[in-house]
Amino acid sequence: MTAADNGDGAETLARRARLLAPTYRLFYRQPLQIVRADGVWMYDQHGRAYLDAYNNVPVVGHCHAYVVDALTRQARTLNTHTRYLAEEPLQLAEELLATMPEEIGRLIFTCTGSEANDLAVRVCKAVTGGTGFIVTDFAYHGVTDVLAGMSPEDGGPLGPGVYTVPGPRSREDRAAFAERVRECLGRMQADGVRLAALLVDTIFASDGVFAEPRGFLADAVRHVRAAGGLFIADEVQPGFGRLGDAMWGFQRHGVTPDLVTMGKPMGNGHPVAAVAARASVFEQFAKHRHYFNTYGGNSVSCAAALAVLQVIRNENLIDNARRTGEYLQRGLRALAERHRAIREVRGAGLFLGVELGANDQSGLSGSAETARVVNAMRDRAVLVGSTGRNGDVLKIRSPLTFQPQHADLLLEALDRSLQTVA
Amino acid sequence: MTAADNGDGAETLARRARLLAPTYRLFYRQPLQIVRADGVWMYDQHGRAYLDAYNNVPVVGHCHAYVVDALTRQARTLNTHTRYLAEEPLQLAEELLATMPEEIGRLIFTCTGSEANDLAVRVCKAVTGGTGFIVTDFAYHGVTDVLAGMSPEDGGPLGPGVYTVPGPRSREDRAAFAERVRECLGRMQADGVRLAALLVDTIFASDGVFAEPRGFLADAVRHVRAAGGLFIADEVQPGFGRLGDAMWGFQRHGVTPDLVTMGKPMGNGHPVAAVAARASVFEQFAKHRHYFNTYGGNSVSCAAALAVLQVIRNENLIDNARRTGEYLQRGLRALAERHRAIREVRGAGLFLGVELGANDQSGLSGSAETARVVNAMRDRAVLVGSTGRNGDVLKIRSPLTFQPQHADLLLEALDRSLQTVA
Repeated sequence: MTAADNGDGAETLARRARLLAPTYRLFYRQPLQIVRADGVWMYDQHGRAYLDAYNNVPVVGHCHAYVVDALTRQARTLNTHTRYLAEEPLQLAEELLATMPEEIGRLIFTCTGSEANDLAVRVCKAVTGGTGFIVTDFAYHGVTDVLAGMSPEDGGPLGPGVYTVPGPRSREDRAAFAERVRECLGRMQADGVRLAALLVDTIFASDGVFAEPRGFLADAVRHVRAAGGLFIADEVQPGFGRLGDAMWGFQRHGVTPDLVTMGKPMGNGHPVAAVAARASVFEQFAKHRHYFNTYGGNSVSCAAALAVLQVIRNENLIDNARRTGEYLQRGLRALAERHRAIREVRGAGLFLGVELGANDQSGLSGSAETARVVNAMRDRAVLVGSTGRNGDVLKIRSPLTFQPQHADLLLEALDRSLQTVA
Repeated sequence: MTAADNGDGAETLARRARLLAPTYRLFYRQPLQIVRADGVWMYDQHGRAYLDAYNNVPVVGHCHAYVVDALTRQARTLNTHTRYLAEEPLQLAEELLATMPEEIGRLIFTCTGSEANDLAVRVCKAVTGGTGFIVTDFAYHGVTDVLAGMSPEDGGPLGPGVYTVPGPRSREDRAAFAERVRECLGRMQADGVRLAALLVDTIFASDGVFAEPRGFLADAVRHVRAAGGLFIADEVQPGFGRLGDAMWGFQRHGVTPDLVTMGKPMGNGHPVAAVAARASVFEQFAKHRHYFNTYGGNSVSCAAALAVLQVIRNENLIDNARRTGEYLQRGLRALAERHRAIREVRGAGLFLGVELGANDQSGLSGSAETARVVNAMRDRAVLVGSTGRNGDVLKIRSPLTFQPQHADLLLEALDRSLQTVA
């Protein structure tokens, strides 16, 4: 609770309107004021605990002591950039590259997933000489000027040279995905646009969370390569073990990307991100350009990211994401048998989507129904979000320390919320 | 010293080549391996102390205890984003806006100066409907795809709609600056390009550090506004009191920008940045777009930035920048009387440029001479850099805690370096 606030957040809301740009959006009909967090729990100004099943950034749990200690120790010792020789960025690069296929051999640090995707785009343009990019039709890849034009979810116009293919929304869409990419390559060629890359989020989060069947991406990538293009795997959301079977989403699809971008969970909330790529790709880029990112690869960011990797290993969090994710997915499927509003349960590990459909009685659209469920769950102190082209998919994406007892709390809150509002 | 290194950095260099992209560059002929830092001092793996007269990011001094404590305390408590209500981003926005003219009334947080400039560009495009930008001909504004096209220093081609005016290199250039901007507006109009904004770094750092005469920017801004464009003051380098007379470089020029971008020193090394603007500008942008930056305005970044502002006030660092800067500038001018290699001493506060010229005996270019001086000073344990279109300007840009005794050390090292290599 702020000193100036009487406890209901109204004063904070008013200050926010007075100080921040109106581009900001809050979650929930009744916005939450959060004052502290620990593990999978967030606490409001009245001390009420909320189960965090939404935030993917605090991947090892909010305020994890090991990460905070590493951050503190390094911040007391040194925080500088990559134009001096230092151990931290090298150790981090080594550990990250060790989680990837051997072909992905070099790394550049940035500070955010947006900077990572923006750099990957720059690299692909420079290396191929092309300007043509293929993204899905409800993709989200970041906030920079060039990425806004590659993020149809953002609602703005596509950038020059940007083409879309339908997101893999249905079983048929997934089966046809490669063919649609091939058709898109044809359109691009007919327009005289030279191909640069295919850029996809390997869990298709903004499209609505699509993990299955494993491998449906592989043929699409083959078509892109045959046409002289590169493949950027956007791992900003699926990366760091969230899908429960490996560190990276592309590994589910049995493909080796040319570039891999990572961000959000990398520092458990500390701004750190990176692009990894085949050595030859960066070598080509380096012929055209230097790249220096002031904070990118700074000592403290690297220490935070190294601590996160250590915790993921120490606490077997990839395995936990798989096990707890399977448990939660079974529970969601059981709910689906009792609630007609649930159309589909999907995802992998601790990145799950629950598609809701119009309930005959309510007459609500899937989108309105989903918004009501998200708000009802918030009122029951369980935090989830929504996603998808129609806004009709519950997005469940907890810290990877989520346990079966937390899944039970979520399932109970969802069960009750569906009873009352769906 | 790394475990694997014998102490000369060779092993670290080899690992770096094996792990990082070849886009990275190191400072100095003999790169420095830095293992800790404190105040204005950085220490190599042998414990040798180097006086830091280069790094503007650790603005209140390396590893300042007040900032580290604030960072640690917040990292232990909460690190989350702006989609919940929280006190930290509001307090930070309030304190930052209080340092600016009243017209600059709203703020958006980002993580880096590049993200801030990129967002300012997006905003100006959306608000004006234009794509035309004017920058100086050796400007540097950041690393994103769109900013690389507005950063001729980067060496790549200009982006579409980007026009340059000569940097204000000579007294005549400064006097003619507004007229050149006016001519540039005419070229843009003749090409049928609609104006969006003038974007300049208010200390013209990459152009070669040009602070005087105060106000030479004002008429240029008037021309831009008369033509329907906006003015973005890039304060990423000059901001946060470095110029010694106010918080922001635009205040030297008696102009009120439409947008102000800030970054580098804002978190003393922690990645935090922002765009402030007139409320009407952000209101216009918000009609077209939302903007959410995952880490932008997160609790820990805000705590770090709030601590930096507090230290700047507590330790009177703006005043110190002015006083120590004047002392150092007097010393540099005294050196210039004895060393023909020094062509000009310029700048403001603790952002100084020393232009070097070909020495008759050496036959070196200003650029080669400057590189030799920078390396000779490094060997004397004083860290400075170089800048400018011809690479012939020593860039002196220490933490703002620099004292006269540090200035004396710098002056002595420069005196000796000029004797031996210039």
